[in-house]
Amino acid sequence: MAPQYAPSLRSCLGPMLLVLQLGFILIYAFYIEIESNVKVYGITFSNLYPEFQDVNVMVILGFGYMCTFLVRYGFSGSGFNLLVAVIATQWAIILNGIENWYYRGKIRIDLKSLVVAEMCAASALISIGVVLGKTNPVHLILIALLEVSGFVLNEWLLQTLLKVPPLNSIMLLHIFAAFFGLMLTRILYRKGSEQPFEKEKVDRKTGLFSILGTLFLCVFWPSFNSVLVDNRTPGRRLGAVLSTYLALAVSAVTAAAVSSLSSPKGKLNPIHLQSCMLAGGVSIGVSMPAVHQPWEAMAIGFTAAVVSTIGFRYLKSHMLLAFKCHDTCAVLSTHGLPGLLGWLAHLLLQIKDCDDHTTAIRFAVFHICSLLITISLSLCMGIITGLLLKWNFWRPPQDKKCFDDQAFWEFPHLAVQK
Amino acid sequence: MAPQYAPSLRSCLGPMLLVLQLGFILIYAFYIEIESNVKVYGITFSNLYPEFQDVNVMVILGFGYMCTFLVRYGFSGSGFNLLVAVIATQWAIILNGIENWYYRGKIRIDLKSLVVAEMCAASALISIGVVLGKTNPVHLILIALLEVSGFVLNEWLLQTLLKVPPLNSIMLLHIFAAFFGLMLTRILYRKGSEQPFEKEKVDRKTGLFSILGTLFLCVFWPSFNSVLVDNRTPGRRLGAVLSTYLALAVSAVTAAAVSSLSSPKGKLNPIHLQSCMLAGGVSIGVSMPAVHQPWEAMAIGFTAAVVSTIGFRYLKSHMLLAFKCHDTCAVLSTHGLPGLLGWLAHLLLQIKDCDDHTTAIRFAVFHICSLLITISLSLCMGIITGLLLKWNFWRPPQDKKCFDDQAFWEFPHLAVQK
Amino acid sequence: MAPQYAPSLRSCLGPMLLVLQLGFILIYAFYIEIESNVKVYGITFSNLYPEFQDVNVMVILGFGYMCTFLVRYGFSGSGFNLLVAVIATQWAIILNGIENWYYRGKIRIDLKSLVVAEMCAASALISIGVVLGKTNPVHLILIALLEVSGFVLNEWLLQTLLKVPPLNSIMLLHIFAAFFGLMLTRILYRKGSEQPFEKEKVDRKTGLFSILGTLFLCVFWPSFNSVLVDNRTPGRRLGAVLSTYLALAVSAVTAAAVSSLSSPKGKLNPIHLQSCMLAGGVSIGVSMPAVHQPWEAMAIGFTAAVVSTIGFRYLKSHMLLAFKCHDTCAVLSTHGLPGLLGWLAHLLLQIKDCDDHTTAIRFAVFHICSLLITISLSLCMGIITGLLLKWNFWRPPQDKKCFDDQAFWEFPHLAVQK
Repeated sequence: MAPQYAPSLRSCLGPMLLVLQLGFILIYAFYIEIESNVKVYGITFSNLYPEFQDVNVMVILGFGYMCTFLVRYGFSGSGFNLLVAVIATQWAIILNGIENWYYRGKIRIDLKSLVVAEMCAASALISIGVVLGKTNPVHLILIALLEVSGFVLNEWLLQTLLKVPPLNSIMLLHIFAAFFGLMLTRILYRKGSEQPFEKEKVDRKTGLFSILGTLFLCVFWPSFNSVLVDNRTPGRRLGAVLSTYLALAVSAVTAAAVSSLSSPKGKLNPIHLQSCMLAGGVSIGVSMPAVHQPWEAMAIGFTAAVVSTIGFRYLKSHMLLAFKCHDTCAVLSTHGLPGLLGWLAHLLLQIKDCDDHTTAIRFAVFHICSLLITISLSLCMGIITGLLLKWNFWRPPQDKKCFDDQAFWEFPHLAVQK
Repeated sequence: MAPQYAPSLRSCLGPMLLVLQLGFILIYAFYIEIESNVKVYGITFSNLYPEFQDVNVMVILGFGYMCTFLVRYGFSGSGFNLLVAVIATQWAIILNGIENWYYRGKIRIDLKSLVVAEMCAASALISIGVVLGKTNPVHLILIALLEVSGFVLNEWLLQTLLKVPPLNSIMLLHIFAAFFGLMLTRILYRKGSEQPFEKEKVDRKTGLFSILGTLFLCVFWPSFNSVLVDNRTPGRRLGAVLSTYLALAVSAVTAAAVSSLSSPKGKLNPIHLQSCMLAGGVSIGVSMPAVHQPWEAMAIGFTAAVVSTIGFRYLKSHMLLAFKCHDTCAVLSTHGLPGLLGWLAHLLLQIKDCDDHTTAIRFAVFHICSLLITISLSLCMGIITGLLLKWNFWRPPQDKKCFDDQAFWEFPHLAVQK
Repeated sequence: MAPQYAPSLRSCLGPMLLVLQLGFILIYAFYIEIESNVKVYGITFSNLYPEFQDVNVMVILGFGYMCTFLVRYGFSGSGFNLLVAVIATQWAIILNGIENWYYRGKIRIDLKSLVVAEMCAASALISIGVVLGKTNPVHLILIALLEVSGFVLNEWLLQTLLKVPPLNSIMLLHIFAAFFGLMLTRILYRKGSEQPFEKEKVDRKTGLFSILGTLFLCVFWPSFNSVLVDNRTPGRRLGAVLSTYLALAVSAVTAAAVSSLSSPKGKLNPIHLQSCMLAGGVSIGVSMPAVHQPWEAMAIGFTAAVVSTIGFRYLKSHMLLAFKCHDTCAVLSTHGLPGLLGWLAHLLLQIKDCDDHTTAIRFAVFHICSLLITISLSLCMGIITGLLLKWNFWRPPQDKKCFDDQAFWEFPHLAVQK
C-alpha cells in the first residue's frame, strides 16, 4: 500500500502549499502594507516587542515541542506544528484585516496585528492537538484554514452582535478550539480505535521533549494573557501578569496533588502534570477581565487543575468509548473544561461586582449568549471541516501508519541502531 | 517492598500539597493585594518585564533541565524542580512581605516582589541539587520551605543588624544554599554511598538535555544579576550586564582549559564545562557591587572557573570520603566555592577603592560578619532540616530506588523498547 | 593510535585556551572600559536589552543546538559552539574597537558593541558549520580567530572605501562566512570523503535537538535583523521585524512544498525544512535596507527557500564530487546562496526606487564592488586559514575518529546500555 499512498501526498501536499503560499503573496502584494503612523507605534514598539517574542516562542516552540511526546511522531509533531502555525498566522492577518480593507481598501499591519494573528494560529494548533497522528499534513492545513476562519467569524459576531470587547472574544479561543477539535475527531472517528493505536506511545526522551514544550508555554503564558491588555491603564497589565503567574503556580501544585491522590500507588503521572498545569493558564485567560485579587486567580487555578486532572484521568477514556472522540492531546481537559470554568468564573465575579440587579442580569444574558454562539459555531465548523476531510481525495493515513513519522518524512542518513 | 512504599507517598504527598496550597490561597486572600500605585509601577513595568521573564526562564527551565542529566531521573529532575520552584516562590512572597504586613496589615505585591521571590526559590533549587535523587518529593518540599525561611531570615538579619543593602544580601543566596545543602546531605548520609549508586549515570541524550538547561542559565544570567540593580543610575545596570557576560565567557573558556589540562588524555569533561562555566556567573553576582571595570569581571570569572574545575575534579570524591557529603549536582564547586571567591573579591575590591583606613577596616568587619552570619545560619538550618527529614514518617526511598523515576512516576503508555 | 593522539590535544588545547584567555584579560585591563555616558545609554538600554538577549539566545542556544544533529557528535556540536562563540565575541570586541583605540587610546563598550561582536561571532559559527566533525577544537578556535579578523577587516574596507553603512556591511556576514568556510573545506579536503563518513549520521532524538536549535534561530531572527536598525526612525524597526517574520514564514512553507515535490515519494526531508526555512531569514537580512513592502519580503523568502531547497537536494553532493567541498551543515545552501540572492534583491529593489539613471548606476557599481571585495577577501582568508590548519602540528583527527565525541570528551559515568 505504501507506494500507492506516498505519490498521492506528492501530488497533493506540494502543489497545495505552493498555491496557498503564492496566493498569500499575491493578496499581500495588493492589499497589505506596513503601518506608517510611526509616532504612535514607535512608542508602542519597544513596549510590545518583548511580549510579542514571548508569544512567538509559545506558538512555535511551546506548542511544537509539547506535541513531540509520541515516540515515533516527533518530527511530525514539531514540523507540522510549524507549518500550520505560519500558514494560520498569514491567513489570520488577512481575515482580521477584512473590515479595514472594506472601509479603506488596504490592510495596515503592525506588531499588534501579528500578535492577534499568532493567537488565532494558537487556536488552530490547539484543535490540531485533538487529531494529531491520525491525519496527514494536507488535512492539518485544511483544518487550520477552516478553524481560523471560523474563529475570526466568531470574534466578529461577538463584537458586532454583543459588543464583546476584542480581548474577551480572543480569549475564548480555548473553548472554540477545543469544541471544534472534539466535533472534528467525532466525525473522523475510525472504527476500532477503542483499542489504543499500535504506535501511540511515549518514551523517556520524548517525554522530556514534551515537558520542555510545556514549560515554554508555562513560562511565557503571562505574556500571552497580558500582551493585549490595554497598557493605557498600566495596573491592568501588571495584574494580568501576576494573576497568570499565580494561577499557573497553583495549578501545577494542585495537578500534582490530585494526580498522586487519584493513583492507586500514589504516583504522579507526568502527562497529568503537563496538561493540567496549563489548565490554570487557560482558566485565568478566559476570566482575566473580572479578576482583581491574587487569591481569585489562585482559586481559579486550583479549581481548574482539579477539574482538569479528574477530567484527564476519567473522562478521556469515557469520551472515547461513549462519544467515540479520540482525543490525542487531551484537549478537552486541558483547554475545553478549564475554558468553560474560566467563563463561569468570569460570570460569577462580574455579577458579584455589579451594583444592581439589572446590570447583573444584562451581563449574564450577554455572557451566556456569547458562550452559546461560540460553542454552536465551533461545533458547526467542526462538522463542516470533518465532512470535508472525510473525502478520500485527501488520502487519510491507514490505521497502521497512524502516529508514525515514516509515512511523511524521509531519513536518508538515519543511524541504524534505534 | 514497593507496594508497601508507594501507598505512603499517596497518604503523604497529595494531602500535603493540597493543605499547603489551600493554606497559601487563604493567606493570599486575607493579606495580599496587587500594588495599586499605577503611576510609578506603570513606568517600571515595561522596563522590568523582559528581565523578569528571563529570571523566570532560568528558574523553571534552566534549573529544571540542568537536573535532567541522570539517565533514569529526568522526569523527577524537571518535574520536582517545577513543583519546588512554584511552592518556594509563593512562600517567599509571603515571607518577604511580613514586614509590610506588620506595619500596614497588607502585603502589596508587584513585579519586583515576584522577581525577589523567584530568587529565593532559586536558592531552594540550588540546595535541592545536593540531595537530588536520594529524597522523595515530600522531602524536597520540606527542604524548600525551610531553606526559603532560613534565607529570608538571613536577609532580614543582615539588613537589620549590618545594614547590608538588599541586593548584596540576596546575592549571598549561592553561599547560603550551598552550605545549607552540604550540611543537609551530611546529616542524611546513607551508609554505603561511598560506592556510586547503581543508577547515578548519564547518557548522551540526557547529557544534551542537561547542557540545554545550563545554557539557559548561562544565557539569561546577565538578567539575573542585573534585574535588581537600581535603574535610577542607569550605567550600573549596563555594567552589571556586561560584567556578567564577560565573566561567563571567560569562565567557559577557562573551565575547558583546566578540564583538558587536568585530564590524563587531554579530553574535556562535559560536566566540568557545564557546572564550572556557571561559576563565573556566581562569583560575579556576589561581587557585583564592587566591580567597575571589565577586566575585573574577567579576572573574577577566570579565578572562579579555575577554583571550580579543580574543586570538581578533586574535591567531590574527597568530600564524599572524608566528610560523608554526597553532592549530586556538585553544588559545592558550582555555587559554594565561587560564591566565597566572589565574596572575597568584593572585599578586596572595596578595600582597594576606600580612601582611608577607617572606612576600609569598618567595611571589612561588616563584610566578614555578614559572611559569618550567612554561613552559621545556613549550617544551622541545614542541621534542623536534616534532623526533621531523618524522621521515618516521610519514608525516604530505599537505596536501590534512588535516582529512579519509577518510584514516583507512572508511565501507562511507555513504549517497551528503551 | 588513540593514546598517541590524545596527549597532543592536552599539550595543545589547554595551554592555547589559557594563553588566549589571559591575553584577552590583559588587553581588556589596559584598553577597554565601560561606556560612562549614562544619559544616552540609559535610555537605550531598556530598548536594546530584550533584543540583545534574543541575539544571545540565537548565538549560544540556536547555533549550538542546530549542530547537535550528528548522532555521536552532540556534545562537540554544542560545546565547541559555545567555546567558539565566547572566544570570537571577546576577540570581536577588541577588533571592532581598534579605530576608537587609535583615536582615543581606549575602547568604550556598551550593549551595542556586544551585539555587534555577537554578530561577528555568528559569522564564525556559520563557517565552523562547514568543517564540523572533521576538525579538532584547536582548529575551530584558530578558524574563529581568523574568520572574525577577516570579517572585521572586510567591514572596515567596505565602510572606508565604499562608504557602505555599518548595518549593510554586517549583514554580509552570511556571504562572507559561507565562502570562507567553503574555501577552507576545499583546502582541508581528505581523500576518500566522497564516501560518507562512518559516523556522519542522524537519529530521531538528535534530530529533535537540532530542530530545537533551528526553531530558536527562527523565532528570534526578527531580533537579529532589527536590533541594529536605527530606532530614531521607529517605523524602520517595525518594518524589519515584520519583514523578517513574513520571510521566515513563507520560506518554511515553500521549503516544505519544494522538499515534498522533489522527493520521489512526496515525503518531507526534515533537514531541508530546517536549513531552508532559515534561508528566508538570511536573504531578508541581506536585502533589508531596500525592502519596504510585506510582499517584497515574502517574495524574497519564497525565492530563497526554492533556491536553497533545490541547492540542498542537488548541489551538496555535486559540490563534494566536483569541487571536493565536504559541507557538513550545508552552509552553501543555507547561508551562501540565500545571501547572494538577498544581495541581488537589494540591488534590484534599490535600482527600482532610484529616480534617475546616474544614481542607479552609481549604486549598482558600489553594490557590485562591495560583493566582490567580500567574496575575494573571504576566499583569501579561507585559503590562508586552510593552509595554516593543514600543518600537522595541530593534529587533525583521523578519518575514523571524525564525527565522534569520544575523541574529545570523557564520560566517566556514562550508562552502558545505549
